[in-house]
Amino acid sequence: MSKKLTSRTEDYSKWYNELVVKADLAENSAVRGCMVIKPYGYAIWEKMQAELDKKFKETGHQNAYFPLFVPKSLFEAEEKNAEGFAKECAVVTHYRLQNDPDKPGKLRVDPEARLEEELVVRPTSEAIIWNTYRGWIQSYRDLPLLINQWANVVRWEMRTRLFLRTAEFLWQEGHTAHATKAEALDEAKLMNNVYANFVENFMAIPVVQGVKTESERFAGADETYCIEALMQDGKALQAGTSHFLGQNFAKAFDVKFANKEGKQDHVWATSWGVSTRLMGALIMTHSDDQGLVLPPSLAPNQVVIVPIYKSDEDLNAITEVANSIITDLRAKNRTIKFDNRTTHRPGAKFAQHELQGVPLRIAIGPKDLANGTVEIARRDNLTKETVSLNDLVNRVEELLEDIQASLYKKALDYRDSHITEVENFDDFKNVLENKGGFISAHWDGTNETEDKIKELTKATIRCIPLENKEEEGVCVYTGAPSKQRVLFAKAY
Amino acid sequence: MSKKLTSRTEDYSKWYNELVVKADLAENSAVRGCMVIKPYGYAIWEKMQAELDKKFKETGHQNAYFPLFVPKSLFEAEEKNAEGFAKECAVVTHYRLQNDPDKPGKLRVDPEARLEEELVVRPTSEAIIWNTYRGWIQSYRDLPLLINQWANVVRWEMRTRLFLRTAEFLWQEGHTAHATKAEALDEAKLMNNVYANFVENFMAIPVVQGVKTESERFAGADETYCIEALMQDGKALQAGTSHFLGQNFAKAFDVKFANKEGKQDHVWATSWGVSTRLMGALIMTHSDDQGLVLPPSLAPNQVVIVPIYKSDEDLNAITEVANSIITDLRAKNRTIKFDNRTTHRPGAKFAQHELQGVPLRIAIGPKDLANGTVEIARRDNLTKETVSLNDLVNRVEELLEDIQASLYKKALDYRDSHITEVENFDDFKNVLENKGGFISAHWDGTNETEDKIKELTKATIRCIPLENKEEEGVCVYTGAPSKQRVLFAKAY
Ligand SMILES: [Zn+2]
Ligand SMILES: [Zn+2]
Repeated sequence: MSKKLTSRTEDYSKWYNELVVKADLAENSAVRGCMVIKPYGYAIWEKMQAELDKKFKETGHQNAYFPLFVPKSLFEAEEKNAEGFAKECAVVTHYRLQNDPDKPGKLRVDPEARLEEELVVRPTSEAIIWNTYRGWIQSYRDLPLLINQWANVVRWEMRTRLFLRTAEFLWQEGHTAHATKAEALDEAKLMNNVYANFVENFMAIPVVQGVKTESERFAGADETYCIEALMQDGKALQAGTSHFLGQNFAKAFDVKFANKEGKQDHVWATSWGVSTRLMGALIMTHSDDQGLVLPPSLAPNQVVIVPIYKSDEDLNAITEVANSIITDLRAKNRTIKFDNRTTHRPGAKFAQHELQGVPLRIAIGPKDLANGTVEIARRDNLTKETVSLNDLVNRVEELLEDIQASLYKKALDYRDSHITEVENFDDFKNVLENKGGFISAHWDGTNETEDKIKELTKATIRCIPLENKEEEGVCVYTGAPSKQRVLFAKAY
Repeated sequence: MSKKLTSRTEDYSKWYNELVVKADLAENSAVRGCMVIKPYGYAIWEKMQAELDKKFKETGHQNAYFPLFVPKSLFEAEEKNAEGFAKECAVVTHYRLQNDPDKPGKLRVDPEARLEEELVVRPTSEAIIWNTYRGWIQSYRDLPLLINQWANVVRWEMRTRLFLRTAEFLWQEGHTAHATKAEALDEAKLMNNVYANFVENFMAIPVVQGVKTESERFAGADETYCIEALMQDGKALQAGTSHFLGQNFAKAFDVKFANKEGKQDHVWATSWGVSTRLMGALIMTHSDDQGLVLPPSLAPNQVVIVPIYKSDEDLNAITEVANSIITDLRAKNRTIKFDNRTTHRPGAKFAQHELQGVPLRIAIGPKDLANGTVEIARRDNLTKETVSLNDLVNRVEELLEDIQASLYKKALDYRDSHITEVENFDDFKNVLENKGGFISAHWDGTNETEDKIKELTKATIRCIPLENKEEEGVCVYTGAPSKQRVLFAKAY
């Protein structure tokens, strides 16, 4: 397989698919719509998990694990949630295979092993979790209940794309229970904020925090907070959501608590999640025509050292220098790899590390040995410099910090220059088609107008930004009065 | 619910189930045979995962993720494996629900959304993984391929017990590919050894390393290595297995590589796994009639501090002392919690921490404040001592190390005193019924004898120990000649 990628301008979508596969992040599997996350892609996901898990625990949450399956009768208990997910559920109907009497060596479903009640493979876990919480919550002393789960979920999407939309994906889902509405609302906002901080500071992706319109809300939620990012092709990507569920699930599953006065009340709920979709956001924000570009905080290897040598003596001398660099950088908690494979030439190694987005590449050759220097190449801007071994550790630290900051700044500049205020529908369509990005426009607040705009342009309201100034205006489509702008975009 | 447990002598099985639920480790769910792992139980599992994951990475393995579903045609490709798991497979047959026309507000499976090919929920992932490896392996340069996956799997067991045997469970499964038989055999033994070290040093559970007889082998394996532990009721528990798969999966999925001479050959394979079943082993090895007993290396909180006070002044003074202890012990990487809940009395806190197996409890009251002391209680042997604040950090370190070592020693003494050599079948039955534990006996090496002994006594051959002296003898059942003893036991 050629290592060269289709360029972004040539075919953005093809560039993305090729990059995911060639950089060894993921690939399609034999199961329709399900992906295999390859070791290099999984190592990046593990870094995301570790950081998020730390943040969840710092904010008082504990992990737990709930069943993969949801009995149909529980699944249908919260009607809006059930309606929202029913059309994309994988359903287990049997619990045994048997030899196929018509086809020797083949198996078939045993018709006698039909389940009395079908089991839905969880598309999200509110139902099974709230059915469990009924047994865990009796009094205000049991609240708040702050739980997170790392799990796989299945949504039978018809059109799938690696990381962005897959039938099975990995995620975390927080599910919390509270004594008051105010506390639950605070939790939903807090976790949206945790997501925003993580995505901005760790993934170097700027996001807009906002709330969803009614039609874009999570099925079963009273309010959905979200973080929205902008990809390089001008399309938005929802990077995380945090839902205020009101008392909807508590009522559907009859979860009540005795308050301090001894009065019974239904509890208030939130749920919130991010998924392997973040991998898609990461790729599409920073990468270029040469391949993946990784912020140092997510790179499995922040630095790679490639030896350039002809003789064994040279290799031995380079190895000594490399080992000393590795020791120094590991002491600074940096991840570094010595790529001394004898099966590949330096050029092939350079190409691979470029394709896989290793932030810094250090090359050491015989001349460097003589001069006491190394060559450092930055992956983000493809610049090189020669550095004295004496300055190396400090310079690597500086460069890694600079790469992390530069990637964020570059993405922020792109994003900020792609939020366009428009005042009429012609401009709306024009900007959407020719410039892309977020369109900041007045909207009359009705589902009808939102639907009509979507139908005409494929743009949806990504969110009503949390930090929004009040501003009198008229709806970009109907001309009806409006008090604030919302963000429209085409979206992944 | 009463906090008092049924005693082990009264009803061991009831004691176990009560302990799991009352210590907040896990509970049964609304889904038949599936458990909810509660936060306290999950925190222990996370500690196991972290340590195992470190050991896997230290031995060169990388994590990845493969699909939850296995298309039936792939599932049946390796015949022995398929036959072994076919009878306990959850099968997805449909991908959509719809409103039930006969029952308003209810859903039913949409008969039009039948899958062309049924999907098996993975009971183990050899099939889907080896089908993927075909694309990853072309040459000897691609080998060895050393991959691990943390995942949920489903086996439709008819009789289930929390942690020990559940329809869904969490586990890790390693899947490796090698150029030679010898290398694959070494890998299978290495990982069995990694498991043994982890279970002995970290979980404080002694194990026997051995190989399974043909009839107890993993379906599809040429050899199964295992670690076998002994529970307090004299029954054995298989704590982990590591399989040499020969070329069986490589042949079933046509995975070949070009060796250094350019010749094509099928690759050699291993797979190995441990699961949340280890939680059951942990509980049944160390716990007592007062509840859970945890080795310090697995305790979510190694130390808990309980303040005993009447006035706010006392609480303030105790809090100051507690904070200083916490700072000192966290500096030693110890996990410690200050249980200053105002909703519970000290007695209730003592009972809870005892039930949940916190290794050390520090109580601080007004007298301690006056004397510059605290009271430390050990969970394992229920002894108490008064310690000066000046000596506290060192004493806590000593005690935690002593608890870890004592638990292992106690379990080892029990295990070693419950390996009984027997020479005839009357003694065999007598020891099995009245003493329990492992029976070390000669066996003629045939499946028939093994089956017959199982039928008559419910004892199975747990393993042929790796460290086994050659010894001439006669089979305990048939009297036929034998060259070594094997270990029999009733097992979980
Ligand atoms: Zn109710
Ligand atoms: Zn073949």
